[in-house]
Amino acid sequence: MRWLRYDGPNGVRYGIVEGDTVAEIDATPFVAWKRTGATAALHAVKTLVPVIPGTFYAIGLNYAAHAVEFGTGQVAPHPRPQPGYRANSALIADGENIVIPATSGGIQYEGELVVVIGKTARYVSEADALSVVLGYTIGNDVSERTWQKADTGLWRAKNADTFKPMGPWIETDVDLPSLMTRVRINGKQMVEFRTNDMINGVERYIAEISKYMTLHPGDVIWMGTEGSNADMRAGDVCEIELDQIGTLRNPIVAEKR
Amino acid sequence: MRWLRYDGPNGVRYGIVEGDTVAEIDATPFVAWKRTGATAALHAVKTLVPVIPGTFYAIGLNYAAHAVEFGTGQVAPHPRPQPGYRANSALIADGENIVIPATSGGIQYEGELVVVIGKTARYVSEADALSVVLGYTIGNDVSERTWQKADTGLWRAKNADTFKPMGPWIETDVDLPSLMTRVRINGKQMVEFRTNDMINGVERYIAEISKYMTLHPGDVIWMGTEGSNADMRAGDVCEIELDQIGTLRNPIVAEKR
Repeated sequence: MRWLRYDGPNGVRYGIVEGDTVAEIDATPFVAWKRTGATAALHAVKTLVPVIPGTFYAIGLNYAAHAVEFGTGQVAPHPRPQPGYRANSALIADGENIVIPATSGGIQYEGELVVVIGKTARYVSEADALSVVLGYTIGNDVSERTWQKADTGLWRAKNADTFKPMGPWIETDVDLPSLMTRVRINGKQMVEFRTNDMINGVERYIAEISKYMTLHPGDVIWMGTEGSNADMRAGDVCEIELDQIGTLRNPIVAEKR
Repeated sequence: MRWLRYDGPNGVRYGIVEGDTVAEIDATPFVAWKRTGATAALHAVKTLVPVIPGTFYAIGLNYAAHAVEFGTGQVAPHPRPQPGYRANSALIADGENIVIPATSGGIQYEGELVVVIGKTARYVSEADALSVVLGYTIGNDVSERTWQKADTGLWRAKNADTFKPMGPWIETDVDLPSLMTRVRINGKQMVEFRTNDMINGVERYIAEISKYMTLHPGDVIWMGTEGSNADMRAGDVCEIELDQIGTLRNPIVAEKR
């Protein structure tokens, strides 16, 4: 099932994507819901960020080659899972523009699997971890590399306005072991990797986070990226495809000041 | 003016604190509002976290002595302001229990001024910065020091459940230069400092953040703490007083598993 959050004839709603239409529901996928009977054509509604998270987790250095490039040079840089955080203020939807800041030295894509939590959860075992997941979407962890190197933290390098495209929808039926991630710039494939080839997987992170904090419906966990990335330039279009979920597509523009 | 968010006779509401009563409004302080005419006794309502932030900023190492103890040993550890982030999942209200995790090696208080943003803001000058502030509240940036030392980030050290008490209300009329912060454990004063003796002040941070990201109504910025801190133990009560705002009071309990 694909959950779309959209602005349509009846305002901001959640609906179920069925072919070229979206079937409206009366609530959100995180609570009890039922179909209202209203439908709209997909092309006629505005796609929104699929969820505004209560807490926005992000995993760094979770794939081998990326960890070598940006981490300490070791394949497993952390002895234990350690999430970070991103800012809701940076979120944009599928189709919206990624803006290169006027003061930027260059921005790069990072194609990521996003886990959307569906149930309140504390002290979840790895065996039960996937039972608290509503579904999965796609994230582009846009990164400004000169700021990433200059700063002690990631605040502006990864959280400047428009740096967190997420969408287009939440897919509930995903087979993680066979899922593939592909990033294209202007149609040319730049990166391809098996999504689940993580140093620490989805189950491990959900179990570890929930040892210390309660996961809530609507929280998201961005799972990190693999490979080396290239600069995106004004006029480019970045597409991140996770084959069982869909494609997150965002044009790149330069800031006008 | 003091804005209280509370659960009272009419459910979750915002109201204006006037002596021992709270006067209900029909909306939130972040939009157009008017009084409903309903009032309730302060002691008869449940105080809630004064705002659930869209983005939760936190400043580290923003006072001289604290920066020496926890930073690189230099008085000004960062050449430029650099905020971090905290997790909404850790927020608790005035009066609620701070829970020492069963696996903790010890937790400490950090008394902080919290800036509550009232207006959407981008590219704000330092001169105009305070005009986008709705008011101020109090935060206790509870920290687990063994995790802080062991991890590369602050995720569990500062974001475990109950580690972010905030409240009791938002005070709009504060004179920052004369504001004092005092922390008491079981009534004994542990720390006292002039709140505005920051390495980088409120105006500087608002201006710097807004160069890269949009500040939104309801966002909060925790401004950091001064001095050395002591462990809190089960049975203790921690009070953080910012004299023109009020007192944030939380009992400490041990996790039961």
